[in-house]
Amino acid sequence: MDLKYNERGLIPAIVQDEASGEVLMMAWMNAESLRLTQQTGEVHFWSRSRQELWRKGETSGNVLYLRQIRADCDADVLLLQVEASGPACHTGARSCFFQELEDIDEA
Amino acid sequence: MDLKYNERGLIPAIVQDEASGEVLMMAWMNAESLRLTQQTGEVHFWSRSRQELWRKGETSGNVLYLRQIRADCDADVLLLQVEASGPACHTGARSCFFQELEDIDEA
Repeated sequence: MDLKYNERGLIPAIVQDEASGEVLMMAWMNAESLRLTQQTGEVHFWSRSRQELWRKGETSGNVLYLRQIRADCDADVLLLQVEASGPACHTGARSCFFQELEDIDEA
Repeated sequence: MDLKYNERGLIPAIVQDEASGEVLMMAWMNAESLRLTQQTGEVHFWSRSRQELWRKGETSGNVLYLRQIRADCDADVLLLQVEASGPACHTGARSCFFQELEDIDEA
């Protein structure tokens, strides 16, 4: 089975803390960031806003160490089990998912 | 903060089993499926392949009961905590993420 990248050559990557099971973040990978992640053991993404490869932690120091990658049944989503060396979120939160939906204006 | 839907009006929704912490699946929601999910307490998605609203379990009976919704720091990804009434995957697996990446041809 081949991985299915979208029309922009990207695949969503969900990051889960291997020890706690907490979902830390979701970002996007292209084939090159996946290759670098597997090769180096440190999670790399593709930044859609900056249009560049992005080694998680390259500025913050909060690296994500890869433990396992799984694909879903359609092979169009990845789930990465990691060990996080620090907060995954740029806000300093451990996980990016710290906002309950009630706090968000859905209008 | 407003939720940020993509150019097709969709937002990725990661589904996690509230009790076990297992990540079960990822699918896409539009504003209407989110509204129905909150209103009924049963998770609804938008099927990109069928281009229609999709109440998870409507054919399989394996409904996902909503417990909590969180958004990430950018408000462009949702994380749903659920109670699953059966296997989340159409293959009969509890989670869609049953394939380690080594099993997938990345060429």
